[in-house]
Amino acid sequence: MKAAGVVVEYNPFHNGHAFHLARTKEITGADIVIAVMSGQFLQRGEPALVPKWLRAEMALRTGADIVIELPYQFSTQNADTFAFGAVSILNALGCKYLCFGSESGNTDLFNKTLQFLQSNREEFEKSIRDHIAVGISFPAAAASAFKKLKGNKTLLDLSQPNNILGLAYLKAIEKLQSPMLGMTIKRTSAHYHDQQFTAPSVASATSIRKALFSEHGNIEKIKPYVPDATYHLLKEYKNHYRTFHSWENYWPYLKFRLLQLTPEELAEIYEIEEGIENRLLRMALSAPSFQDFMMNLKTKRYTWTRLQRMCVHILTNTKKHEMHARMHTVSYMRLLGMTKRGRKYLNEQKENFSIPLVSKLSSYKKEAINLDLRAARIYAAGAEKEFVQELLNMEFSRLPIYLEEV
Amino acid sequence: MKAAGVVVEYNPFHNGHAFHLARTKEITGADIVIAVMSGQFLQRGEPALVPKWLRAEMALRTGADIVIELPYQFSTQNADTFAFGAVSILNALGCKYLCFGSESGNTDLFNKTLQFLQSNREEFEKSIRDHIAVGISFPAAAASAFKKLKGNKTLLDLSQPNNILGLAYLKAIEKLQSPMLGMTIKRTSAHYHDQQFTAPSVASATSIRKALFSEHGNIEKIKPYVPDATYHLLKEYKNHYRTFHSWENYWPYLKFRLLQLTPEELAEIYEIEEGIENRLLRMALSAPSFQDFMMNLKTKRYTWTRLQRMCVHILTNTKKHEMHARMHTVSYMRLLGMTKRGRKYLNEQKENFSIPLVSKLSSYKKEAINLDLRAARIYAAGAEKEFVQELLNMEFSRLPIYLEEV
Repeated sequence: MKAAGVVVEYNPFHNGHAFHLARTKEITGADIVIAVMSGQFLQRGEPALVPKWLRAEMALRTGADIVIELPYQFSTQNADTFAFGAVSILNALGCKYLCFGSESGNTDLFNKTLQFLQSNREEFEKSIRDHIAVGISFPAAAASAFKKLKGNKTLLDLSQPNNILGLAYLKAIEKLQSPMLGMTIKRTSAHYHDQQFTAPSVASATSIRKALFSEHGNIEKIKPYVPDATYHLLKEYKNHYRTFHSWENYWPYLKFRLLQLTPEELAEIYEIEEGIENRLLRMALSAPSFQDFMMNLKTKRYTWTRLQRMCVHILTNTKKHEMHARMHTVSYMRLLGMTKRGRKYLNEQKENFSIPLVSKLSSYKKEAINLDLRAARIYAAGAEKEFVQELLNMEFSRLPIYLEEV
Repeated sequence: MKAAGVVVEYNPFHNGHAFHLARTKEITGADIVIAVMSGQFLQRGEPALVPKWLRAEMALRTGADIVIELPYQFSTQNADTFAFGAVSILNALGCKYLCFGSESGNTDLFNKTLQFLQSNREEFEKSIRDHIAVGISFPAAAASAFKKLKGNKTLLDLSQPNNILGLAYLKAIEKLQSPMLGMTIKRTSAHYHDQQFTAPSVASATSIRKALFSEHGNIEKIKPYVPDATYHLLKEYKNHYRTFHSWENYWPYLKFRLLQLTPEELAEIYEIEEGIENRLLRMALSAPSFQDFMMNLKTKRYTWTRLQRMCVHILTNTKKHEMHARMHTVSYMRLLGMTKRGRKYLNEQKENFSIPLVSKLSSYKKEAINLDLRAARIYAAGAEKEFVQELLNMEFSRLPIYLEEV
């Protein structure tokens, strides 16, 4: 059996994701698709709308065959570290292809851009440093340095988030000397950051979340834009747990923690750089909501995403030394779910996996997985009070999802 | 002017406290009474029912002339450290007398018992250690060792909490070589731990709190047992803030923190002894309420009070090194309020104070006061969500209460 891999967050899974999975099978001819998916906290520094188990099930019911959790130490990171973790897993699972959506959609252009950057690496990096020195954020510095460097050459537009991520996947494939082939397909009409519904049946996850959280949020509104499985799973979750998870659910805890921390202790948290500690503590003292807090915190030097990632690490109490010890190699792959075909693939291939596959938490006692466990515990604390215990149990007692028939 | 001192918590101020203040003036002939009062967290390891400002006002309206906050590093401690902090302050303020309530009510018996313990110190301490070694708590060990040691002699009953505290005051007076005279009066009919109303107009603070928190809690019920000032201040607070503060208000935060901590980090918290860390973390994972948590946590080795104090320190993130640096000397005295006579005394005497008196937070920038500030911030987090900010402001912007006429 031949497998193709995708790297995803599914927050939530929508029609565009279903299209991506179908096209992945089509253009690669793979028998199965393996999705590496962020767990409870996402790359942009946010809690996921619903737990990873539901998001895995949405995917398994609509085209994915295996879902593996991208560990916390990779999922809440910049593009390069995020990509390195995800590609390491797909490579260890023996995927022949990695198929990613991008604004460009042109695989050749990705390869050309990667080559160009590698031959001009020193100059590129120096230029980024010069840009950062005047007080702008890393992504803005990189986009501007790249524009200057490429001149009139036809290369990727590196101000687009999915082009940046795609390039990071290709860099990771090269770094790992993996035989996996990276391929891109063009993202359908909705843009990543679209706030409102545009196309008739494809909408960005951002606009779907916005609809779910809006004051008159009605789950029926998103029905045209998501597969049936997503619609039903979201509806059941909301009916039972009475909330979708947003930063506001966690704001009381984040604020409490910032009322409690000294600047010295805060400086031990991953991603906290000198100079931001006092600002974080000061802003927390007076902000009534996460939204207000972020508005007051934001400066030109830090992107919104970067600040949110800091907040996630404060919330999960993730220290610099813990991350540094874990973010340079992937040491386990936690299986969230599989279809019948997915299971067949795993049985066929398991002897070849270079990284242990974890199905049962209780039989995997390594330190490395602790950040995921902590993230899951903290995620559960954001539920309505009477459901915290149920969400905690969901994480710690359950086995991977298995779908006999999809 | 001549001052007498009292050491108090006023949680809340009731008729027994009013009687204590009146008797203190009567038997000492003092012109004013100074109360050193625990701040937001109390000796038994609990959040105060209402903020210290209200509790200070209750006292000033009903007999006290000056209220000083007992710093966190002394208020959330065992009897000896608690007493040392409080007596240091009364001594620094030039009090001639310290008048405390006790079960015994016999000052001679206190002095005799103190002398007896001092001449038999080594034997007493060895006996306590022997008792602890078999796995019982310190108070139980001390009471049992004392009973054995004293034989048939007529000495204090050291199984009574206020006798123990009283003895600690006398020890502190001696340790500080203070000229202050310690005197005791018999506590009126209600016992410290009484859960229900007994005497017609005196009730324990415990039974008053129980009535306030009971399901059909009606503030009218406590009216016979508290002065008017207490009744009105409690009523206004509840009407406005919609809560009295109990451990249950802080349970979500304590649980969150215990979901977040590693055993190694937990071991840095003050009072956390080897062996209890994993138990604390494990019990937090499954307890739906603070009450459940404590019931599961309790063992013969630790008293309920001791465990609650651990929980307060976890909640306020108070580290061993922070406490050790601050609990051996009192370096400031924060003024919470005064009457006109109290102010006159302070003006008359201020040149003689050996410890700085702090009226405005903004003009006192020493590190030592940080534990009080953190305790006040964390205390505020236990308010209903929409009032957290208001309680934070109450602490950080206000000046001491001044009552021109009482």
